[in-house]
Amino acid sequence: MFDAETAAGPPLERLDDGVAAIHEASISILEELGIEVRHARARQLLAAAGAAVGDDDVVRVPRSIVADAVDSAPSRFTLHARNPENDVVVGDGRPVRAPGYGPSHVYTLDGERRRARLADYERLVKLTQSEDALTCVGYRLCEPADVPRERRHLETLRRSLTLADKPVMASTTGAERARECLELVGIAVGDPDLGRPYVAGLVNTVPPRSTDEAMLAGLLAYADAGQPPVVTSFTMAGASGPPTVAGSVAQANAETLLGVTLTQLVEPGTPVVYGLSCSPVDDRHGSLSVGSPESALAVPLAAELGRAYGLPTRSGGGLTDAKAVDYQAGFESTFLQAVTAFGGVDFVLHAAGVLESYAAVSPGKFVLDCETLRYLDRFAEGYAVDEDALDLGTLAATEPAGHFLEATPDGRFHDPAIVDKRSHDDWGADGAPSVRERARDRVRALLESYERPAIEPVVERELEAYVDARGG
Amino acid sequence: MFDAETAAGPPLERLDDGVAAIHEASISILEELGIEVRHARARQLLAAAGAAVGDDDVVRVPRSIVADAVDSAPSRFTLHARNPENDVVVGDGRPVRAPGYGPSHVYTLDGERRRARLADYERLVKLTQSEDALTCVGYRLCEPADVPRERRHLETLRRSLTLADKPVMASTTGAERARECLELVGIAVGDPDLGRPYVAGLVNTVPPRSTDEAMLAGLLAYADAGQPPVVTSFTMAGASGPPTVAGSVAQANAETLLGVTLTQLVEPGTPVVYGLSCSPVDDRHGSLSVGSPESALAVPLAAELGRAYGLPTRSGGGLTDAKAVDYQAGFESTFLQAVTAFGGVDFVLHAAGVLESYAAVSPGKFVLDCETLRYLDRFAEGYAVDEDALDLGTLAATEPAGHFLEATPDGRFHDPAIVDKRSHDDWGADGAPSVRERARDRVRALLESYERPAIEPVVERELEAYVDARGG
Repeated sequence: MFDAETAAGPPLERLDDGVAAIHEASISILEELGIEVRHARARQLLAAAGAAVGDDDVVRVPRSIVADAVDSAPSRFTLHARNPENDVVVGDGRPVRAPGYGPSHVYTLDGERRRARLADYERLVKLTQSEDALTCVGYRLCEPADVPRERRHLETLRRSLTLADKPVMASTTGAERARECLELVGIAVGDPDLGRPYVAGLVNTVPPRSTDEAMLAGLLAYADAGQPPVVTSFTMAGASGPPTVAGSVAQANAETLLGVTLTQLVEPGTPVVYGLSCSPVDDRHGSLSVGSPESALAVPLAAELGRAYGLPTRSGGGLTDAKAVDYQAGFESTFLQAVTAFGGVDFVLHAAGVLESYAAVSPGKFVLDCETLRYLDRFAEGYAVDEDALDLGTLAATEPAGHFLEATPDGRFHDPAIVDKRSHDDWGADGAPSVRERARDRVRALLESYERPAIEPVVERELEAYVDARGG
Repeated sequence: MFDAETAAGPPLERLDDGVAAIHEASISILEELGIEVRHARARQLLAAAGAAVGDDDVVRVPRSIVADAVDSAPSRFTLHARNPENDVVVGDGRPVRAPGYGPSHVYTLDGERRRARLADYERLVKLTQSEDALTCVGYRLCEPADVPRERRHLETLRRSLTLADKPVMASTTGAERARECLELVGIAVGDPDLGRPYVAGLVNTVPPRSTDEAMLAGLLAYADAGQPPVVTSFTMAGASGPPTVAGSVAQANAETLLGVTLTQLVEPGTPVVYGLSCSPVDDRHGSLSVGSPESALAVPLAAELGRAYGLPTRSGGGLTDAKAVDYQAGFESTFLQAVTAFGGVDFVLHAAGVLESYAAVSPGKFVLDCETLRYLDRFAEGYAVDEDALDLGTLAATEPAGHFLEATPDGRFHDPAIVDKRSHDDWGADGAPSVRERARDRVRALLESYERPAIEPVVERELEAYVDARGG
């Protein structure tokens, strides 16, 4: 009659030989085709370990070197915040989430779209601090055009460190910027030697099969300091990668494994995040299509690969190609968020606020994405099945066709912060507020109730002095 | 280094003793508390099988009766359409999907909200016929207020049968209406004796622990005719059910099992769908909250229970409490659609178009929900991992930091029908069409290109004559 064994559903993941075949393809890319390594010290590290470096700077890496690196990298680590209450574990099954990374444009609460400014960055840090669904400040929440490029990393990181007290990310673009960021973090956390992981740095490869000198310099600087690089190959299938999910992921996996390997050649045991994202070109317009089913397919696959290597993974996020906070934005970013959560991704960038692929950030979408994340977290909590939950006593005491209203305490169910649950009539009688208006109201309320986290005045002065003295 | 065994992620479902505990609770509800059965023949059937019928019409059903029924009901069946190309298998792992069921209000393409009319019903049938993501016409796509209630089942079913040639559902509200619907279907399919399953009928219980006389009459009429009832307990946790997911699902499961049992007491082997949905009351307003995480939790649980019983399942859909086709609508309905698909539900009502919980239908949301379903189907297809897909030859022929544009044929990736993938600038240069406008365009295009499926003139005349002669 009832067979719990048959209750299990179709798994979200393939759980077949697919990941093994992709792994083997990646190893053959590393061993036979090689990857262009555009940084002298990185090539030296690989050569010293036994890799073959060509005159064209293409490095062919034997699988044993990769295997040793993968084995020495930790499967989890704690990323510390300047407020220890906000420390996060990367790789413990619960996702660490940071907002959008890199948007050049912002939407204002009045609906204007313009280049981002430092004041926008500050607001986004405050929102990140205020929303519990986000557990990492991230970095490049937007690109403030009113700050000279050579000062941007310092001015923005100082805001990340003072307006919030969650863990941060910082610049990896070149040795100098990376070093300055690491020093600034050292001041903020009161540990100038960075004795443990405090700051993650996104390191992107250059698909196909190449790397960027500045980014590799950043990777090495972070690894030297024991700080976790988030090595990510972002591959555009059909443009910077082959036109299949498997082909692009095999190539991306090879590139990410090279980055992971470098971190371990600097120092075995260096914390590192295995990152992989893959989105196709749009068939009709040739543009990037991040909110596509192929993008979604790559997310649990990235998490599968990362788990097979025993590494914390990064992929996914609340991604959409929508140009407004509309059905498309809700649909695409929720679908990506869902497979990111269900796939078991450990570290999520772009978890809130991004629109137009990666090009813009909207405060309204920011808080709505956090609403989505709270739903996902409530879903992930599951439900109790015990005597209290089943409560057959109350059930027995309720007449057929009766009701349980008196037996239902307030606060029993998930209470959304923004979306409206009223009937059309009740909602209409209240002025029929749109979800965009309600989102704007929440942004305003969060910014109004925002409280700057405590910081020692001497530390703040030191941060300010450091930034004032540097950056061109 | 690489261990495919560890690649598997966290399962979407609990896969623990939870479903077994819920099953046991449901059995104790059936055996000890009993369910009010408000139909004389239904009580007689249960009594004849060995159940205890009280003076208050509450029937206590021993587990052996339920076990025999669950075992005799088929785990899958074919629901036939008048066009055999559109036959669907219910229970083969691929979801059968029908649009919204029961909305009283419609949104017009001009954005007006008003009571539904027969012309709206016709448009919705045409859209259902046109959208491949939907494989069943369903029933009560809207409630046409301009057709007298006593004629509605016949006028709407005739449209379902003539404007589309996909499988249908029909009325279960009372023996007479059910019989008329079954006869009308018999005419349309040219099989007056209904020698195989052609029409499904939704049969709702009355939680807690009760039933409706008219619905039970419908259930018996369908079972007598060998047509599949979709027995569903829809429970509002905290109102018509206890204020927990497990408690409400245990109660709902008992009610649905009673309905399933009745179908098998009529005739062992009668096709039947095991349906269960559970949504909480909104904590703040006391309204129904279908687009909630607790609603989502009940969906894979319903599918788990159905699989444990070896029955095709119904749950989920594209459900939202939004009052407009906005971010909330996209977010909530996509989240529900995703867990419906990932949970392995076999039969999905409300798969497209519904807004305001169940109260309204929007043609724009209808086609956007179908877009979501196409994404989900593309995701479910997965990706090939073989020599062709990995294509290491092309990869080897591409220089580091080169590109694959020439190696990428058109049509390689998913091509969305509505959502926009262009950059903000390209989109702006094209007049910045909103996703609602694009959805409206698709609705208009589908209605314009709609072709009425072929039907024998004699059959059509007979359907018309049948309807004209009946229904008050």
